[in-house]
Amino acid sequence: METFFVVDPAAHNSLVYAAYRHRGFTDSEAHAAARFCEMASTYGIRTHNAIKALHLDHLFGSGIGGCVPGADVEKRPCAFAASEIWNSNRKLGQPVAFDAMDRCIELADEFGIGQVSVDNAFHYLWGGGYVMEAARRGYVAYTNCTSALAEVVPFGGKFPTLGTNPHSWGFPTQDAVGFPIVIDWATSTVAMGRVQQFKREGEQLPPDAAVDAGGRPTRDPNEAVSLLPFGAHKGYGLALINELAAAFIGGSLPTLRGRAVPDGEKSSAAFYFQVIHPDAMASGLFARGRTQQQNLEAVLDDILGHGNESALLPGQIEARSAQKTAAAGGLLFTSAEIDSLNELAAECGHDNLRGEPCPA
Amino acid sequence: METFFVVDPAAHNSLVYAAYRHRGFTDSEAHAAARFCEMASTYGIRTHNAIKALHLDHLFGSGIGGCVPGADVEKRPCAFAASEIWNSNRKLGQPVAFDAMDRCIELADEFGIGQVSVDNAFHYLWGGGYVMEAARRGYVAYTNCTSALAEVVPFGGKFPTLGTNPHSWGFPTQDAVGFPIVIDWATSTVAMGRVQQFKREGEQLPPDAAVDAGGRPTRDPNEAVSLLPFGAHKGYGLALINELAAAFIGGSLPTLRGRAVPDGEKSSAAFYFQVIHPDAMASGLFARGRTQQQNLEAVLDDILGHGNESALLPGQIEARSAQKTAAAGGLLFTSAEIDSLNELAAECGHDNLRGEPCPA
Repeated sequence: METFFVVDPAAHNSLVYAAYRHRGFTDSEAHAAARFCEMASTYGIRTHNAIKALHLDHLFGSGIGGCVPGADVEKRPCAFAASEIWNSNRKLGQPVAFDAMDRCIELADEFGIGQVSVDNAFHYLWGGGYVMEAARRGYVAYTNCTSALAEVVPFGGKFPTLGTNPHSWGFPTQDAVGFPIVIDWATSTVAMGRVQQFKREGEQLPPDAAVDAGGRPTRDPNEAVSLLPFGAHKGYGLALINELAAAFIGGSLPTLRGRAVPDGEKSSAAFYFQVIHPDAMASGLFARGRTQQQNLEAVLDDILGHGNESALLPGQIEARSAQKTAAAGGLLFTSAEIDSLNELAAECGHDNLRGEPCPA
Repeated sequence: METFFVVDPAAHNSLVYAAYRHRGFTDSEAHAAARFCEMASTYGIRTHNAIKALHLDHLFGSGIGGCVPGADVEKRPCAFAASEIWNSNRKLGQPVAFDAMDRCIELADEFGIGQVSVDNAFHYLWGGGYVMEAARRGYVAYTNCTSALAEVVPFGGKFPTLGTNPHSWGFPTQDAVGFPIVIDWATSTVAMGRVQQFKREGEQLPPDAAVDAGGRPTRDPNEAVSLLPFGAHKGYGLALINELAAAFIGGSLPTLRGRAVPDGEKSSAAFYFQVIHPDAMASGLFARGRTQQQNLEAVLDDILGHGNESALLPGQIEARSAQKTAAAGGLLFTSAEIDSLNELAAECGHDNLRGEPCPA
C-alpha cells in the first residue's frame, strides 16, 4: 500500500506553470498545461500527471521540436457549418484539446452536434479528461487521437503498424449517478509501460497482450516487443478507426509517426473531437413521464441491479479519486512523485513543493 | 464445405416483397425489406438474410405486435439544425434505417456532420449494411442500436442487464482499397446463437464468453445462460454506450426490452445514426501532395505492409462475398436455405424459388 502526501493545488499549478514557461511555452499554454495536470492528479490518472506530461514533452515535444511552444492554431477552410478543421502546427496538445472541445460545445449548442478535426497535433495526454469536462458541462463528448508510436500489431499480422490509439467517450450522467460516465482506454490489451512493469515484477503477461520479435504471441515480458489489440478483430477495428480518422484529416504513415521521416512525409498525430447536445437526441417520450436524467437513472439502476451491485460504471474509479482528493484537501502524490516534481522545480528555479502526510 | 445454389435476385426480392406484403406491410416497407435481404445475402451475412429477417418478424415483430406494419415515422421537435429525432412508432426497422441514413447524409452535406436518433424502434437487423451503403456513397457513417433482449452481464456483475448491443462504422475507402471498410460487431464475445452451435457441436466455449446460472464464468455451453462482453471492462463500456444513447433518446429499462412490461414502461429499442462528410475532416495538408483517398491508400498500405500482408481489413470478407455473388450471377443459398425460403413462399402464395448449382 503506497503512502500519499497532500500537495496544495495552487503550489502544484504554480510549479507546472513555471516548468512549462521555462521551456518556452506561452502564458496561456502553461496555464492549460497546469489545469490539465491538476485534473489528472485530482482524478487519480497517475500515468498522465505533471511528471509524465513534462517527461513526455522533454522526450518527444519541445525538447526535440516535436512540439512548438507558442505555435498558433490555424483554422483551415471548411464549407460545413457544424465542423471545423484546425492545423495546430504542433502546438502543445492540452490547450488545443481544451479549445477544440469548447468549440465543439458551441457547435453542439447550435447544431445539436459539432466536430473539430486537428492536423499536425502533439499529444493531448489523457483524452478522458477532455470528455469528462464536457460531460460535466452537460454534453455527450468523444475524442480519439493517433498515438506517437506504432507499437500494436494488426489482428492477423505480425509487425506493429498501429498506435495504442485510445478512444474516450463522456456522458453527462452526474445528475443520475453522481458523476459523468467516462469510457476511456487504449485499444491495445495493455500499454508498453505495463509490459515493463510485468518484466520488473517477474510476472507473465495476460494472454493476447504481446508478440515476440517474430510476431508470435508471447506471455513472457522479456520476449515481448510489440503489443496486440484487445479483443482480437474487434479491438483491431477500433484501433483502425483512429488511423482512418487521422488519414482523412491529414495524418501520414503510422510507422513514421514520432520518428524521423523521409522528405515530405509527416510524423505528427491527429486529433478528432465531437460533442452532442443531449437535447438533440431526446424524443421526449420517456416512460412514466420521466425527464431525460430520470430516465438515465432508471436505466443505470436497472443495469447495476439484479445482483450486479458489485459492477462499477466507467468513470466511477476516477470519481472516487476526486472524492479522496477533496477529502484530503489537496492533490495526492507519493513521496517519490514529490521528489520528481521537485526535480522539475529545480529545473525552472521554482520553490520546492511540500507534501503533508495524508490524514486518510 | 457447404454447397451453394444460385438464386435469381429478382425472384428472391419478389418472394421477400410478397412475404412482407402478406404480413400486412406496405409497398415501400416490403421493398425496403427486400432490398435489405438482397444486400445481406450479397455480402454473405447469412445471420441476417431473408429467412432470419422474416423469422424475427414472426417471433418479435408483426406476429406479436412488436412491429407495426404501415406505422408512420413522426419527426419529434428538435431545435438543432444538424439533428433530427424520430418516433418510429415500431415501424419495420429496415426502411427506418435506410431513411435515417439518407437524412444523415443530407445533414452531413450541409453541416459536415448529421445525426438522427430514433425512439420506439423495431430491429434493423444488420447495422453494417446501412453504414456500408453510406460509405459506398462517399461518407463516414456510424450506427448503434439496443438489442431486443438483455443477454449480457456487465463486467464485474452476474445478471444479464445489457443487450449484445452492436456498433457499426463504415468508411469510404473504396477508391483506396477497392471496398468500404466496415467495422461491425456485437459487444458480447459471441452471440447466443453461437453458444447453441457450440452446444450442438459438443465443443467448449471460448474463454470469457458466458456465465452460468450463478453468474460464474463457464466454458461449458450446456451451463451457459448469459453472455459476457468482449474485452472485459472495455467491451462492457462499449455495450453501455448503446444503453446510454437509448436512455438519452427515450429507451426504457434494458431488462424489459422485448418483454411484457409493467404499465407505462417501454419495451422498444432505440437507434442512433450519424454521418460525417469526409471533406469536413480534411485539413488539405496531406503529405507529398496526396489527395485524401491517396493518403488513405498510403496509410492502409503501411498498416498492411511490413509482413502484415495476411491481415485483413474489416469489410474485406464481405467484399469477397460480394465478388463471389457477382461471379455466380445471383444470390448464394444452401439447399436447406432454399427450402426455408420456399416455406415462406408457401406462406404467402408466391412461386417457389429455384436454385441453380453454383459453377464455382
